[in-house]
Amino acid sequence: MTAESTFIEMMRALARDPAARGLLDDTAVIELGQETLILTHDMMAEDVHWLPKADPADVAWKLVSVNLSDLAAKGARPLGVLLGFMLGDGDWDRRFAHGLGQALAHYGVALLGGDTVSNKGDKRSVGLTAIGAATHRPVPARSGARAGDLLYVTGHLGDALAGFELIEAGLEAPDELATAYNRPEARLSEGQALSALVTAMMDVSDGLLLDAERMALASKVEIRIDIDTIPLSMAYRRMRGDGVDSRLQAASWGDDYQLLFTLPEDVHPSVTATCVGVVSEGSGLVLSHKGERLPLPASLGYQHH
Amino acid sequence: MTAESTFIEMMRALARDPAARGLLDDTAVIELGQETLILTHDMMAEDVHWLPKADPADVAWKLVSVNLSDLAAKGARPLGVLLGFMLGDGDWDRRFAHGLGQALAHYGVALLGGDTVSNKGDKRSVGLTAIGAATHRPVPARSGARAGDLLYVTGHLGDALAGFELIEAGLEAPDELATAYNRPEARLSEGQALSALVTAMMDVSDGLLLDAERMALASKVEIRIDIDTIPLSMAYRRMRGDGVDSRLQAASWGDDYQLLFTLPEDVHPSVTATCVGVVSEGSGLVLSHKGERLPLPASLGYQHH
Repeated sequence: MTAESTFIEMMRALARDPAARGLLDDTAVIELGQETLILTHDMMAEDVHWLPKADPADVAWKLVSVNLSDLAAKGARPLGVLLGFMLGDGDWDRRFAHGLGQALAHYGVALLGGDTVSNKGDKRSVGLTAIGAATHRPVPARSGARAGDLLYVTGHLGDALAGFELIEAGLEAPDELATAYNRPEARLSEGQALSALVTAMMDVSDGLLLDAERMALASKVEIRIDIDTIPLSMAYRRMRGDGVDSRLQAASWGDDYQLLFTLPEDVHPSVTATCVGVVSEGSGLVLSHKGERLPLPASLGYQHH
Repeated sequence: MTAESTFIEMMRALARDPAARGLLDDTAVIELGQETLILTHDMMAEDVHWLPKADPADVAWKLVSVNLSDLAAKGARPLGVLLGFMLGDGDWDRRFAHGLGQALAHYGVALLGGDTVSNKGDKRSVGLTAIGAATHRPVPARSGARAGDLLYVTGHLGDALAGFELIEAGLEAPDELATAYNRPEARLSEGQALSALVTAMMDVSDGLLLDAERMALASKVEIRIDIDTIPLSMAYRRMRGDGVDSRLQAASWGDDYQLLFTLPEDVHPSVTATCVGVVSEGSGLVLSHKGERLPLPASLGYQHH
């Protein structure tokens, strides 16, 4: 077991409250009187989640987006965020504050509080807590997919990967790809519009294949994804083509922050989305390409370590 | 301005929602339907909040207590916590998990979620978000003290300071002092019992004098503290005496996590507490000793930097 999985196992033993959902979900769901609260806390660390040369304003934007993306997958309306910030040099802090302000204004979300500590080490990390209120009960979970459902994803996949590769190589990335990596968008309105319809929903943070496999395991079903249907942007195709390898890569990299959801066959999605698969009895993830079964790649997505 | 105060000024510009209370309070207070939510996020960093030789179980305990202490000062009932954790070596992580489990069991509070990141740097930091529900409206704030009120504090002051000094010097600390420093107690039941009575309330995290001055400024009143009345434990007196200097030190060091509150003169505190001062018209903090006015010490408490 990795250090992370060992630690998470220890945490799971402490998370016996039903609101914790066994730490198997991306958020906590607290029933309080007539309200249902959704809470999430995601961190980002230098050299893990951002390159040292990254613009701190983009780091702040992404920190807001990854947290709000977890609320989006629950169909939640954000109530605000709390920031945990490690102070460093003044320029970095100012750029971070600038990007935080841009992101909060973009989403119309309030900063409610938080804490700062001096950075005595050589690397920084930042954390954000987002709290929201459910707009529909029951709150969508990754465990609700049922045999006969269809699997959908919003937007395009792989753009963040393509943008990251260009940026890391010091090359100029087309705006669409750079934005997908640096300034991802949490699908809040889509999540709210979908939450009354879906049988299961989650965000694609670690790669479509890995996240779909998690949905299949949580729902105790088989999910078959047809690789040909994976939605790729023009910019992505231009850079990497749309062959099987390119499609598998787009489907096994994280940072997309699209919504992955299942609907009964006779229910149409209320937002623009692409049908990428079907749910059936069985277990786990199955891939196909032009009707032929495709072996699973060695890595389905970004495994935290 | 320090890096922290510069950054907090920038954050204040983003915190225009009334729930943020201008970042002047220790918690966010969110009105949601019939519920009032209290949220806080406090971080701790190696070499700032704990010595490298500290037991990680104590670090975890303190992280829980400092956050719950903020809820206590609002009279809130905790709903749960989310952990932001930086993975390090397995032994440290295991001891931390052990202490976290002890603290959560002690307070009867659930772990609801959180996040872990690999530590790519040479120092660790950890963060916790605590969420609670108010048990009384209006929620106590530090801004409600009125001329004529009396000022009270729960428990003893200075024990954590005395424990810290012994531990840092590598000396054996009496249990009472070591516990005050390593395993402080959030005054949750006291906070709930007091919340319907108090005109103002906050926790003493940065030193009685500094925190009382903050209360005076927020309430636009003068607070006069009689140094002779500061409650000192037997263990503290035995180690440091109870002269004026010793009393001033006990009153200007943080980490006490007692509750500081004001009551109208004719209202008796519903928990064990010591009257340490009076509120009058005017502004700021005034000290007295045996009826004589005493100049304020150069440092009133622990100023974050």
